[in-house]
Amino acid sequence: MPSHAPGPIDLARLQEVLDGPWSAVRDAHRRHLDARFLPVHGETGDQARARITRLLAELPVELGTSAAFPTEYGGQSDVGASIVASEMLAQVDLSLMVKSGVQWGLFGGAVVALGTRRHHDAYLRDIISGKLLGCFAMTETGHGSDVQQLRTTCTYDPRTQTFDLHTPHQAARKDYIGNAARDGRMAVVFAQLITGGRRHGVHAWLVPIRDAQGNPLPGVTIGDAGLKAGLLGVDNGRITFDHVTVPRDMLLDRYGQVAPDGSYSSPIENDSRRFFTMLGTLVRGRVSVGGAASAATKSALTIAVRYGDIRRQFGTPGADREVLLNDYLAHQRKLLPALATTYAYHFAQAELVAALHDAQRGDGPVDEHQQRELESRAAGLKAAQTWHATRTIQLCREACGGAGYLAENRLPGLKADTDVFTTFEGDNTVLLQMVAKGLLTGYRDEFGSLDGWGRASFVADQVREMVLERTAARSLIQRLISAVPGRDEEVAVTDRGWQLKVFEDRERHLLEGAIRRLRGGANTKKDHPFDIFNDVQDHLLAVAAAHVDRVTLEAFVAGIESTPDPAVQELLSRVCDLYALSVVESNKGWLLEHGRLTPARSKAITSVVNSLLKELRPQLRTLVDGFAVPAAWLDCAILREEPDRQETMAAHDAAGDPRTVPA
Amino acid sequence: MPSHAPGPIDLARLQEVLDGPWSAVRDAHRRHLDARFLPVHGETGDQARARITRLLAELPVELGTSAAFPTEYGGQSDVGASIVASEMLAQVDLSLMVKSGVQWGLFGGAVVALGTRRHHDAYLRDIISGKLLGCFAMTETGHGSDVQQLRTTCTYDPRTQTFDLHTPHQAARKDYIGNAARDGRMAVVFAQLITGGRRHGVHAWLVPIRDAQGNPLPGVTIGDAGLKAGLLGVDNGRITFDHVTVPRDMLLDRYGQVAPDGSYSSPIENDSRRFFTMLGTLVRGRVSVGGAASAATKSALTIAVRYGDIRRQFGTPGADREVLLNDYLAHQRKLLPALATTYAYHFAQAELVAALHDAQRGDGPVDEHQQRELESRAAGLKAAQTWHATRTIQLCREACGGAGYLAENRLPGLKADTDVFTTFEGDNTVLLQMVAKGLLTGYRDEFGSLDGWGRASFVADQVREMVLERTAARSLIQRLISAVPGRDEEVAVTDRGWQLKVFEDRERHLLEGAIRRLRGGANTKKDHPFDIFNDVQDHLLAVAAAHVDRVTLEAFVAGIESTPDPAVQELLSRVCDLYALSVVESNKGWLLEHGRLTPARSKAITSVVNSLLKELRPQLRTLVDGFAVPAAWLDCAILREEPDRQETMAAHDAAGDPRTVPA
Repeated sequence: MPSHAPGPIDLARLQEVLDGPWSAVRDAHRRHLDARFLPVHGETGDQARARITRLLAELPVELGTSAAFPTEYGGQSDVGASIVASEMLAQVDLSLMVKSGVQWGLFGGAVVALGTRRHHDAYLRDIISGKLLGCFAMTETGHGSDVQQLRTTCTYDPRTQTFDLHTPHQAARKDYIGNAARDGRMAVVFAQLITGGRRHGVHAWLVPIRDAQGNPLPGVTIGDAGLKAGLLGVDNGRITFDHVTVPRDMLLDRYGQVAPDGSYSSPIENDSRRFFTMLGTLVRGRVSVGGAASAATKSALTIAVRYGDIRRQFGTPGADREVLLNDYLAHQRKLLPALATTYAYHFAQAELVAALHDAQRGDGPVDEHQQRELESRAAGLKAAQTWHATRTIQLCREACGGAGYLAENRLPGLKADTDVFTTFEGDNTVLLQMVAKGLLTGYRDEFGSLDGWGRASFVADQVREMVLERTAARSLIQRLISAVPGRDEEVAVTDRGWQLKVFEDRERHLLEGAIRRLRGGANTKKDHPFDIFNDVQDHLLAVAAAHVDRVTLEAFVAGIESTPDPAVQELLSRVCDLYALSVVESNKGWLLEHGRLTPARSKAITSVVNSLLKELRPQLRTLVDGFAVPAAWLDCAILREEPDRQETMAAHDAAGDPRTVPA
Repeated sequence: MPSHAPGPIDLARLQEVLDGPWSAVRDAHRRHLDARFLPVHGETGDQARARITRLLAELPVELGTSAAFPTEYGGQSDVGASIVASEMLAQVDLSLMVKSGVQWGLFGGAVVALGTRRHHDAYLRDIISGKLLGCFAMTETGHGSDVQQLRTTCTYDPRTQTFDLHTPHQAARKDYIGNAARDGRMAVVFAQLITGGRRHGVHAWLVPIRDAQGNPLPGVTIGDAGLKAGLLGVDNGRITFDHVTVPRDMLLDRYGQVAPDGSYSSPIENDSRRFFTMLGTLVRGRVSVGGAASAATKSALTIAVRYGDIRRQFGTPGADREVLLNDYLAHQRKLLPALATTYAYHFAQAELVAALHDAQRGDGPVDEHQQRELESRAAGLKAAQTWHATRTIQLCREACGGAGYLAENRLPGLKADTDVFTTFEGDNTVLLQMVAKGLLTGYRDEFGSLDGWGRASFVADQVREMVLERTAARSLIQRLISAVPGRDEEVAVTDRGWQLKVFEDRERHLLEGAIRRLRGGANTKKDHPFDIFNDVQDHLLAVAAAHVDRVTLEAFVAGIESTPDPAVQELLSRVCDLYALSVVESNKGWLLEHGRLTPARSKAITSVVNSLLKELRPQLRTLVDGFAVPAAWLDCAILREEPDRQETMAAHDAAGDPRTVPA
C-alpha cells in the first residue's frame, strides 16, 4: 500500500503542471472566450452553422488558433500553440473547434505543407484572416480508410496546360467534407495525378468550388451531409467534380511537379513513399483531435465530479454525516479510474505536442525514423484518447442520472459532438493497425502502408529484431525498472519500477507472439494471403493497445519526475498508481494466463485499487479543479441548483424511516 | 471445437422462434406501421412533440399497445401483448414508444394497479382511448433513486374532506416527468400521506393538473425539462404543487384508505412492505424498457451487419475475392459477440415476459417469494439489456464509420434515444444492488429496501443459506451440468454443461464471498455502519452481474431446447457457445484468479471464440434477418447507396498499386 496520503494541494501549482509550456495560450482562451462562444441548445442545423461561421470570424487573435502558420504571413510558426488552442476551443464549443481545425489545420495546413511559395503568397494571408474559407477534400464515399486508392482523377493536358478534375462515379464523390455544404470557397482536393498517360499516385490541388456569391462553380456539384449526431455547427458536405478545369499552377507541387509539357518530376521517386510523406505533414490534425477529445473528457469529468459532491443518494442509516454520490465505492469505481486515465493521457499528449512542435520547428532534414515514430504515436494516442472520451463522457452522463440527459447540463452535447472522433482523422481500428505495423517493422519504409501484410514473404523480409524504444525520461525509467528485484512477488504493486516492467513486458511479449504467429502464417497459409494478416488481427490490435499503454505510463512517470512541488508530485504519484493498476486490473486475464501475475497478487491488486479510491476520494474535487475549466464554460443547471442541504437533512431526521431503494 | 457447422437456415423457422407466442402482435406492428410513423430528422423540439402526440392518437388499435388493461374497459387483460407492443414500437420510433409507455404503462397502469373500481369506471376508457392524457409523477429533483423518501406531502383535512398536496421545496419538485410539459391533463402523483398528524408513507393520488384549454390549474406550476439528448418527441417536465386541494376520493386507495374522518386503514400493516407492494405492481415498466432497449439494439445490429456486407475496406493483395468489412476478424470481434449477447437477452426477456404475464393473469393471491424473484429478474435484465444497448449501438455506429454519424442512417437517433434507459425506470447500478440484496436474503421481506445494509446485525439476521434458484428448464439444466465429468480439463469448452457449471459456479462463489465479507464487516466495522455495505459494493455488483449472466444463459439453453427446427437449433447452439464463451472470456481474470480456468484453457477459449467467429461469419446476415425488422423501418441511406462493385473492383485491378492505409 502507498504509505503517504497526499498532503494539502496548492491548486495553482497543480494547474501549472497541467497547463505546461503553452499556459499563455490556455489563459488567453480562458480570458477571452465568454458566454457568447458557448453552445446554444435547440438550434436548427442552419442556425448552428450560421452562428459558428460568425464566431469563427470573431475569434480573438490572441488565441493562437492560427499560430502554426509561418511568421512571414502573419502566423507564429508555433505548432504547439495551435494544438493547445484546439484543446482549449474543445472545452468551449466542439463545432467551433472542428470548424477552425478544418479551416486552419486541414485546409490551411495542407496549403502550407503541400504548396510552394506562389500558393503561400497568393492565399495564406486570406486563409489566416478567414477571408478565404476552404475545405480539405480527401475522403471519398467508397474509400474512407483507403486514401491511396481514392478514385477521383486529375489528368493533365499539355495542349491547354490545365488539369481535368473528375469524379468517375458515385463511390468516388468526396464525402463528409467540413466547410463544404455552406462556406467553402476553395478546396484542397486529393486525386490521382495522371499525365502523359501515366499515373503518379495521389496529389493535391487547390480548387475553387464556389463563386463570390457562394454558388457552386460550373462542373462542381455540392451536396449536404445533412443532420449529424452532433457538431451541428459544422457544414459537412459532398462534392462531385464533372470534368472541372484546374490551371496547372494550382497543383500543390512541393512533392510533385508537372512541367508545361506534362513531364512529371518529384524529389521522392517512390509513389507510395511520396504519398506517405505528403500525409505525414498532416499529422497535426490527429494530435489536435486526440487533445480535443481529452479536453472534452476533462469538462465532462468536472461536471460529474462536482455534481457527485452535491448530490445525496440515500440517507445513511445511523450515520451522522451526509453521504454524497461520490462517497459510494461504485461511483468512485466509475469516476476515479477514468480520471486517472485522463491524467495519464494528459501527460502523454503534452509530450507528443512538444515532440511534434520540435520536429516541425526545425528547418533541417527530418529524420525519417523519428518522423514515423511520431506519426505512430499520434495515431495511437488519437485512438486511445478518443475511445477514452467516448467511454468516459458516457459514464459521466450516467453518473449524473436523468440530469445528465438534459441538454442544459452540457453532457449530451459533449457526448454527441465527440462521438465522431473515434472514426474521423483515421478510423481508430485502422490507426491501431498502423501502430502495430510500425512496431513490427521498426518504423522502416512505407510505414503507413498495409501493403504486403498478406504476402507470404512479408514477415521474413520486414520484421526486425524487437527493440522497444523509450520515448521519455529514458534513463529514469531504466533506473526504476532495474531497481525491481528479481522476484516480482516481493515487490509492492505500487512500486513504479514494477508497474513499468509489467507494461513493458506485456508489450514485448505480445509483439513477440505476433511476430511468431505471422511467421507461422506466412509458411502455412501461402494460398490464403488475406488470412495471414486477418487471423492475427486481434493480436495486432492488442500489441498496439499495449504499446500505447506503455508510452502513456512512461510519459506520466516523466511528467511526475519534472513536477517541482512535492505535494503535487505526491498526489500525481497516487493518481499514476491508480492509472497503472487500473490497466493491470483490466488486463489481469492476460497477465494471469502468461504467468505475469499470480492469482494472489491479482486479487491483491483489486483491493489496492479500492484503497487508492478511498485515499483519493478527498482529492476528487482538487483533481478536476486542476483542469481549470472556467466556471463560465461549465454553465450547467445541475451545478447551479444546489439543493438546500440544511432542509433535506432536517427532513431526513424528521422522517425517521428506514432509508430504502426505489422503484 | 464445435463439430457441426450450421446448415442452411429456413429464415421463417428462425423468425418463428424469435417472434415467440406474441407473434401476432409483432406482425400487426410490421403490417400497420408505415413510413408515417418513422422518426423525422431535424425537427425542433416543439415539432417533434406535436408529431408524436398526433401519432399516439393515430396508433392502430390492432397493435395491442393498451392490451394490458382489463377486458371490461376495452383492454385485453394481456400483459405480455402490451410488453411485446413496446418492443415493436421501439423499432419504429423510441419517442413514440416512451410516450405510449408513459400513457398506458405508467399512468394508466398505476390507475389500474393502485386505484379501485370507482377510478377504473371513471377514467380507464378515456385513458385507453387517449382522450385523457396523463403523467406518472414520482421522481423528485433531489431524490431520484430514493422514492420512499420523497418529500412531497399530501395531508388530509377531515373538516373539508380533502387532501392538501404540497411541494415543500425545490428539491421536492417532480422532475423528468413524461407528458408533463405539454400534454398531461392529470397526473398520478406520489407523495407522503399524512392524516391525523401521522405519516403513513408514500401513496398515490390522481390529480388534475391542466384545464380543458391546457392551462395549468391553480397551485400547479409546470416547467419544461427542455431539450434532451434524445426522445425529443416526449414532453418531459417539472411539476410543483402549492397547496393544491385534492378530493378524498382521488386517493388511489387499493393499498391504503382514508375514511372521511381521517382514519387510515390498509390491508398491509407495515409501511415499507406496503410501499414495495405498490411499486411491485409497476414492474411492467422495467420489463418494457429492457425489451425496448434490446429491440433498438436489434435495429442497430441489422444496419451495421448489412452495411458491413456491402462495404469494402481495403483491396486484398493477391486475393481473387472482394473483402468486405464483415470479413475482418476485428470487425467480427466487435459485431458477433454483441449479436450473440443480443440473442441471449432475447431469450431471457421472452422468458421474463411469459413469467410476468402468467403472474399477473392469475386472480389468486400472489406468491410473495415468486413476486420478488420476478421483480429481481426484471431489475437485473433491465440493467443488463440497457447497458448492452448503449454499448452495442455505439459499436454499430463506429462500425459504420462516418456514415454512422449521419442522422439519415438512423444510428444517431437509436443511440441518443436509448441512452437514458440506463438511468430511468431505476438507475442500473441501484437496480443491480437490489438484485444482489434479493440473492442475499432469498427474496424475503422488504426486498427492494436497502434498509439495514449498514446495520451490524443485518447479515447475521438476514443472510440465508445459499441456494441458487433455477428459472427455466430446471431438469434439463441439472442434467447437462451433472453430465460434466469431474475434471474440467477433459471437457470441451463448447460443452453446454461445462458452460452452465462455470456460470453457476461463478455466481455461487461470488455470493458466498459477499456473505463472508458482509459478516466480517458487521463484526469489525460496527462504528462505521455505512462502510459495511460500501466496502463490498463492487463485490455485490459483481454478484448481481454474475446472476444475470447465469439466468440469461439458462434461458438461452431452454429456448434452444424448445426449438423444433434442427438447423435453427444447431445455429442457435453455436450462437449460444459464442455468448457463453464471450462471457467467460471477459471474466477470465476472475476465473483464473479463482482456479476455475487454467492458463492453457483460458488461452484456448480465445482461439475457440475466433473459430466460432469464422464459423458464424457466413450466417451473420441470417442472424440479423431473423429479427425481421421490416425494410421500411430501416430506411437508411447507407443501405440504399450500394456502390457499384463491378466498377470498383475493376479500378482496383487497373491501379495495380499496393493497397495502403490512409491518413
